[in-house]
Amino acid sequence: MPPQNLARQRLLIKGGKVVNDDHSVVADVYVEDGVVRQMGPNLNPQPATGLVVLDATNKLVIPGGIDTHTHMQFPFMGSRSKDDFYTGTKAALAGGTTMIIDFAIPRKGCSLIEAFDTWKSWADPKVCCDYALHVAVTWWSNQVKEEMKSLVENKGVNSFKMFMAYKDLYMVNDEELYEAFSCCKELGAVAQVHAENGDLIALGAKKMLAMGITGPEGHEMCRPEEVEAEATQRAITIANAVNCPLFVVHVMSKSAARVISNARREGKVVYGEPIAAGLGTDGTNYWNKDWGHAAAHVMGPPLRPDPSTPGFLMNLLANDDLSVTGTDNCTFDICQKALGKDDFTKIPNGVNGVEDRMSVIWEKGVYSGKMDENRFVAVTSTNAAKIFNLYPKKGRIAVGSDADIVIWDPSATRTISAKTHHQANDFNIFEGMVCHGVPVVTVSRGKVVYEGGAFNVTAGEGKYVSRPPFPPYVYKRVRQREQVCQPVPVKRAPYTDLVSAASIVPK
Amino acid sequence: MPPQNLARQRLLIKGGKVVNDDHSVVADVYVEDGVVRQMGPNLNPQPATGLVVLDATNKLVIPGGIDTHTHMQFPFMGSRSKDDFYTGTKAALAGGTTMIIDFAIPRKGCSLIEAFDTWKSWADPKVCCDYALHVAVTWWSNQVKEEMKSLVENKGVNSFKMFMAYKDLYMVNDEELYEAFSCCKELGAVAQVHAENGDLIALGAKKMLAMGITGPEGHEMCRPEEVEAEATQRAITIANAVNCPLFVVHVMSKSAARVISNARREGKVVYGEPIAAGLGTDGTNYWNKDWGHAAAHVMGPPLRPDPSTPGFLMNLLANDDLSVTGTDNCTFDICQKALGKDDFTKIPNGVNGVEDRMSVIWEKGVYSGKMDENRFVAVTSTNAAKIFNLYPKKGRIAVGSDADIVIWDPSATRTISAKTHHQANDFNIFEGMVCHGVPVVTVSRGKVVYEGGAFNVTAGEGKYVSRPPFPPYVYKRVRQREQVCQPVPVKRAPYTDLVSAASIVPK
Amino acid sequence: MPPQNLARQRLLIKGGKVVNDDHSVVADVYVEDGVVRQMGPNLNPQPATGLVVLDATNKLVIPGGIDTHTHMQFPFMGSRSKDDFYTGTKAALAGGTTMIIDFAIPRKGCSLIEAFDTWKSWADPKVCCDYALHVAVTWWSNQVKEEMKSLVENKGVNSFKMFMAYKDLYMVNDEELYEAFSCCKELGAVAQVHAENGDLIALGAKKMLAMGITGPEGHEMCRPEEVEAEATQRAITIANAVNCPLFVVHVMSKSAARVISNARREGKVVYGEPIAAGLGTDGTNYWNKDWGHAAAHVMGPPLRPDPSTPGFLMNLLANDDLSVTGTDNCTFDICQKALGKDDFTKIPNGVNGVEDRMSVIWEKGVYSGKMDENRFVAVTSTNAAKIFNLYPKKGRIAVGSDADIVIWDPSATRTISAKTHHQANDFNIFEGMVCHGVPVVTVSRGKVVYEGGAFNVTAGEGKYVSRPPFPPYVYKRVRQREQVCQPVPVKRAPYTDLVSAASIVPK
Amino acid sequence: MPPQNLARQRLLIKGGKVVNDDHSVVADVYVEDGVVRQMGPNLNPQPATGLVVLDATNKLVIPGGIDTHTHMQFPFMGSRSKDDFYTGTKAALAGGTTMIIDFAIPRKGCSLIEAFDTWKSWADPKVCCDYALHVAVTWWSNQVKEEMKSLVENKGVNSFKMFMAYKDLYMVNDEELYEAFSCCKELGAVAQVHAENGDLIALGAKKMLAMGITGPEGHEMCRPEEVEAEATQRAITIANAVNCPLFVVHVMSKSAARVISNARREGKVVYGEPIAAGLGTDGTNYWNKDWGHAAAHVMGPPLRPDPSTPGFLMNLLANDDLSVTGTDNCTFDICQKALGKDDFTKIPNGVNGVEDRMSVIWEKGVYSGKMDENRFVAVTSTNAAKIFNLYPKKGRIAVGSDADIVIWDPSATRTISAKTHHQANDFNIFEGMVCHGVPVVTVSRGKVVYEGGAFNVTAGEGKYVSRPPFPPYVYKRVRQREQVCQPVPVKRAPYTDLVSAASIVPK
Repeated sequence: MPPQNLARQRLLIKGGKVVNDDHSVVADVYVEDGVVRQMGPNLNPQPATGLVVLDATNKLVIPGGIDTHTHMQFPFMGSRSKDDFYTGTKAALAGGTTMIIDFAIPRKGCSLIEAFDTWKSWADPKVCCDYALHVAVTWWSNQVKEEMKSLVENKGVNSFKMFMAYKDLYMVNDEELYEAFSCCKELGAVAQVHAENGDLIALGAKKMLAMGITGPEGHEMCRPEEVEAEATQRAITIANAVNCPLFVVHVMSKSAARVISNARREGKVVYGEPIAAGLGTDGTNYWNKDWGHAAAHVMGPPLRPDPSTPGFLMNLLANDDLSVTGTDNCTFDICQKALGKDDFTKIPNGVNGVEDRMSVIWEKGVYSGKMDENRFVAVTSTNAAKIFNLYPKKGRIAVGSDADIVIWDPSATRTISAKTHHQANDFNIFEGMVCHGVPVVTVSRGKVVYEGGAFNVTAGEGKYVSRPPFPPYVYKRVRQREQVCQPVPVKRAPYTDLVSAASIVPK
Repeated sequence: MPPQNLARQRLLIKGGKVVNDDHSVVADVYVEDGVVRQMGPNLNPQPATGLVVLDATNKLVIPGGIDTHTHMQFPFMGSRSKDDFYTGTKAALAGGTTMIIDFAIPRKGCSLIEAFDTWKSWADPKVCCDYALHVAVTWWSNQVKEEMKSLVENKGVNSFKMFMAYKDLYMVNDEELYEAFSCCKELGAVAQVHAENGDLIALGAKKMLAMGITGPEGHEMCRPEEVEAEATQRAITIANAVNCPLFVVHVMSKSAARVISNARREGKVVYGEPIAAGLGTDGTNYWNKDWGHAAAHVMGPPLRPDPSTPGFLMNLLANDDLSVTGTDNCTFDICQKALGKDDFTKIPNGVNGVEDRMSVIWEKGVYSGKMDENRFVAVTSTNAAKIFNLYPKKGRIAVGSDADIVIWDPSATRTISAKTHHQANDFNIFEGMVCHGVPVVTVSRGKVVYEGGAFNVTAGEGKYVSRPPFPPYVYKRVRQREQVCQPVPVKRAPYTDLVSAASIVPK
Repeated sequence: MPPQNLARQRLLIKGGKVVNDDHSVVADVYVEDGVVRQMGPNLNPQPATGLVVLDATNKLVIPGGIDTHTHMQFPFMGSRSKDDFYTGTKAALAGGTTMIIDFAIPRKGCSLIEAFDTWKSWADPKVCCDYALHVAVTWWSNQVKEEMKSLVENKGVNSFKMFMAYKDLYMVNDEELYEAFSCCKELGAVAQVHAENGDLIALGAKKMLAMGITGPEGHEMCRPEEVEAEATQRAITIANAVNCPLFVVHVMSKSAARVISNARREGKVVYGEPIAAGLGTDGTNYWNKDWGHAAAHVMGPPLRPDPSTPGFLMNLLANDDLSVTGTDNCTFDICQKALGKDDFTKIPNGVNGVEDRMSVIWEKGVYSGKMDENRFVAVTSTNAAKIFNLYPKKGRIAVGSDADIVIWDPSATRTISAKTHHQANDFNIFEGMVCHGVPVVTVSRGKVVYEGGAFNVTAGEGKYVSRPPFPPYVYKRVRQREQVCQPVPVKRAPYTDLVSAASIVPK
Repeated sequence: MPPQNLARQRLLIKGGKVVNDDHSVVADVYVEDGVVRQMGPNLNPQPATGLVVLDATNKLVIPGGIDTHTHMQFPFMGSRSKDDFYTGTKAALAGGTTMIIDFAIPRKGCSLIEAFDTWKSWADPKVCCDYALHVAVTWWSNQVKEEMKSLVENKGVNSFKMFMAYKDLYMVNDEELYEAFSCCKELGAVAQVHAENGDLIALGAKKMLAMGITGPEGHEMCRPEEVEAEATQRAITIANAVNCPLFVVHVMSKSAARVISNARREGKVVYGEPIAAGLGTDGTNYWNKDWGHAAAHVMGPPLRPDPSTPGFLMNLLANDDLSVTGTDNCTFDICQKALGKDDFTKIPNGVNGVEDRMSVIWEKGVYSGKMDENRFVAVTSTNAAKIFNLYPKKGRIAVGSDADIVIWDPSATRTISAKTHHQANDFNIFEGMVCHGVPVVTVSRGKVVYEGGAFNVTAGEGKYVSRPPFPPYVYKRVRQREQVCQPVPVKRAPYTDLVSAASIVPK
């Protein structure tokens, strides 16, 4: 469907409770050309012809979800993740997510811009919803620095991810982190980290294998949560040394979350992103007797065996100690997982989530009473838009905003299953979870793309979204501190005085 | 000025940066009948005649401040606080605050409704800005319970304050707290506490006096911050036992703030209110050689001698561990303070703040880089409006909201001084503080009431604001928990089985 | 057996590893007249005739355990605990405990001295091991104060316990706590508290019953761990206000333990006593389908449903955040428990432990690798002796110490069971626990009283042990602080200056 | 003086209060051949001739101090520390310290054994008190591993120190740390770390210099306490990954101390060593207007500007969150310090302490009421002896122990000053501190070496002390965990089943 058709679509969502992150109000929402044009009681937009009307009575009308962390068709660990930008984004829409942010990841020594272009070339013809790309910094040089600048200035990139794990493949060391963070700060980008100590993982994995532990449980045992907490603490320390805002992707453990939470209390500009997997299930699955089941949960950092972890993370998410939610969606089927059947280090890392994230958070967060519907919107959409400088175009239902809207039925239920999900994979880590809260209609840029289980969407209909640097939500404090908190030298007696003082040393 | 005139006033605030708690945008704001009617670039409201235009270029346009904690003309400790509802609210306007919430406080055994009526009768003829009244519960009985219900249903009260200190005067015990919290929960009101252990204060004061410590320093020494932290912990525990949301007024110490912050991390619905005094100065003043200076800082709970306290509280306020700001404005002049010249327990408790709160928080919070302008709006206005169910009528500049607006010049400076302030008192605890950020125009309900140092306001022009129960911001989670988290009994074998089991006891 | 016989007994323990709290060394131990006379390699005490020789090769020789918390034949909740001073102390010996400290508990309004005398009259004819008595302060008056003094000066009591729970029965309020703590400090006694908020328990129990929750699970639900943590925090605050050392009995929850641990970090003189039950099992038992099983675990404060609690408490015990261990041994059989079959508030509170404490701590602490054998001695014996001023007569194997000695086989195992235990009760909360570490011989005051499962002991053979006030381990810091940390008044201008200052008030 | 003379010396210390870490008792102490032979009341050793009698009435008799951290005549940063093994150990004796542990530090690529031999060759002819040597691991290879083994087996070394700072000079990376820790665990040695992030320091220093900050304050600003806390966390994580006990040298900051304290609560075997400098003064000195004064305080990690740091560290030391105390004694005079007059990175790092450590800890710890005399002995002597496997030969006054004894007068005072101290340096960082508590006599191996200000000691009289591996105090838990906490693989269906499962992948 050509974009001009999309532009002409006119839509009226009637009678729903519009839920933004600050409050909820019953109102109609009128959409034209992909943008919200009017909001209020009893709208009656003219002409009536050509107007698509959706009845949202007794339902919630919420901003479409933004998944801050996906890896579609990602070439990784000798395989390629199963969901590509088509199936992945379609599944996203079915679950109420209308934008994803994926990662362009160059090999060490390779061009960031080329990686960006490659990923974009994969995505553009396939995406069914809007998307953006974080870019990974996997090595350091002047060229990298230049390319970061160019990506920010010319490609609409405002976030860069550094890996502290995946030794020899993606991992950068502390000095490189320092340089990358400094560069991000200068460019007004958000620095992201995968926070695990890659050296410890490599050594730990070797040790586990040597002890005869080759199954998926070894994956967690060689990188227990301390390994994550340590790296999180280190990343925060380094970022703070250069006054750079930090975004910690996939916060998986209580201890790592606590590190972030404590840093925030001290005034550090740091954000934590738990993911659907970590909020909805746990690492006891690695001890499952069924290898395939256990392997299907393998991801990095791993889910944690402490069963109180998901509730703990949800509490912190509810309380704004953690800020946004992604999924790290990176699906591999059982055949792909079986690459590691004799050696857990070879199991491709990744789980599903892009479709079920909204439902899982609703169930474990809102239905459980941990957060209200407004906080739900904040953590599934608004905060992501703020941090990545898309707000209020994205992340809010307001006049002038993109019409990325979901009609959510809080009184319906559905049961998650691989049998019924729309992802390309054969396994769902949330299998059997009953969710009290169901996305019934998804509107992307003003077009009804999903309704009552049926799609009306074409590959390539989504758009790449440029993100300008210096997100005010993130950078206002940073810039102010630059101005008022600069260190100053102590004024002391001049050089010569000191020499003479030194010349009369007693004793 | 009669209200009908006010209603007709039309106002255009041009070219400013409108700052709400979620983001900032350059926009004109058009006001009619005391309400914001339009927002956007280049507004041109018709007719031009009769339109008051304010140029806000390079300035911020922010929601008027809400001071959640004042005591105007409060009869207390053998005296009456100096600022009445006239001078107090005028000073508030000069400082950028357009609404206060005061406290109606009955003696033990006396009617809450009568107290409410009395306070209202004091306020109505004098107030220059909008106001509301919290009501104190200083004793417990069925009558109190009935009156609470009536106040909620008929008088627009949705918050009740309980004192854990001021033994024999206002203090209630744990059982009474439990009852009062239960009642608040049922009525949909916000329970507030003054959290200090009143028994310990009474005993500590006696001890200090016995040791010959009669000066203002004894005030702090007999109630160190542990005494505050203890009561805070206790109040949270009791509130949680009945699933009642809690609002801790005047959080003065690091340890008490930490207690609140920890409770929030665990998912408890609790809010902390630091005050201007605690954010802007500290308790080392009690050791000042000048008795008058020291006594002028006496308030309960006291300012803390640990000089890192204000910065710590500001960090937590920036991070939403603490939520809103008040002042506990309750001024007494040196003659009144001198009632306690031989005995610190007789020094009337109270300090200023209602005028300077916004400036102090801007200086110590925003200028210092601890929070940005949006968080400033949240903590000085928006969150108060949300918690006390006034949002988005108050606390936001949006179409449909009350036109309580301040034009704030972030590049101007002023120096706080008792010589120039508008409060009735002869002392200012912030004396000499240079503030980078100045309220230049204050608009109350659409009328310019303060501009460039000059007032245009009449006693009684402010209005009492009713607050409906069950603020969604506070109560959504509470209600959901009521539904899904109810305890259920274990199903076990019936009675008779047990009896027979018991009849065959071995050994 | 008359004491003179005991006095003549001569004993040589050969070849064992003597384990004290500071280190372990292979040495023989020679005992005469109930006291250790010699220690070293290859002892050869003369004459050889009449010398009892115990071979301890490959075994540990440890100081007999001190159980700091028992309630033998305690009249409580309409019943009387099953283990009396005979069966209870016999069981203690079988488990390697050679001294218990029980509680004399007067009703409100009754004499403390009478209570002490009553309990002593119960114990003296029955005890098989040494014992002492804490005395409870359940009300406050000048008489109580006088009696406390007399008990310290004339009866060898150096510890008093105050209940913050058991409303109307034993509970004292904050002001009474303050007075009792002040009195303890003056007398050089250790103040003990049962730390739970009695008001909340009473109200919570009413609420649970009203909701139809009448089973044992209601016992925990009406007094969750916050209720314990709150009271612990409060007790510490009050004790600190009067510089009184505090001993928190039966620390049952992670949060309460954390409160103690934090207080210790701040320098407060506070000790926490976890008990065998809390270290060896958990509160999930209250949800057991078998009422009798669930009820058998009812005690106050309750065991906690969080299954990570025992390990957490053991970690803190290993790390000296918690100091000593008791049992709160207070056994009731199923018939007695059945008093509460329709109402959990009527289930007599209490569990076993006096026999199994040493084994449980060895298993969960030493065998698990959380603490070493020396720390085991510290937490089962030495620290108790230090805190209650019995050291080094008790709590250490050294020349001059009482010969309360256990030969412990770290390579043997036994399985705990009600079928084989020596307590009077029909239930054992540790049923089925396999313990790697077994007491094989118990020596009390130099006499072999238990060996290989057989007793050689007579009722009344144990002795009441007087405990002098001001235990140095506890009181040295307290006294030093009294001397150097006294508050001093600020020196200020005299009265008249102030008056004149006050007379020239501006404004 | 030949050793045989020493051996013959007979000494009676009369009437003092003997203070060990577990308790204090008035007793005489009789010494022969450098070893304590008898302890008890009214000793009367025969023959009376040749017996040296010291009257200790009203004084304390304590184990001589062990300074766990010195650098005598250390070639460092282009200079050599001023105190050599003669002046340094003499000063130690004057202050009540009878043993030091210094560091042999090879350059990267150089032999550890050679370094050990070199340091020993420096020390042996000069030392006036007993000493031992930690050895540094500054690089990693099989040779290093072999040499560590040899040092443990042949040279009496049981501790190795790794630097996480001093990039390019001594610093090892995470992988090397892992290897070194693994090796220590295998050998039964204590792993030590200098915990600061060396990359961040190098980068931070560059940044400070670029900003024109060249003075001593830059030293702290380029390595704030986060940099220490981060590395501490990392070291603990790595050590825990290989179940290796860890000893963190010179804990200088609240945050680093908190990291250690938290790890201990979780059961990790980790020890923290604060030093006299950090307990007695603070980093505000770096902002002193006098360059020489500021530079004299330069050490790494730096003293912290937060003035509440020393009290905080002392609280944790009192509470056994921190374990032992050293000094990092490494003195440079003003001329040496002046090497960095234009660039703080060139100021030789180091301060005094070996002489004053005991007095500073007594004053700030015992006199202040934070710890008692027994804990004083623990943290200045006993714990060091236990951790480094010298106990009870060192660290305790008991029959059979080395007669390293100090007579301490708790009622005398002295004022610390460079004018009167015995160290080689011209500056004392504790200048002017009044200490209530003075060492009046020091006995080393049974000889009175210092009395009333006069020395009776000869260079080389001290002895090198071999330390056997696997200190039980440290390693008992570690070994037990090795046995019971080994990870085990999950038992699953065999390989072929999995293959066939994989071959029937759905979707």
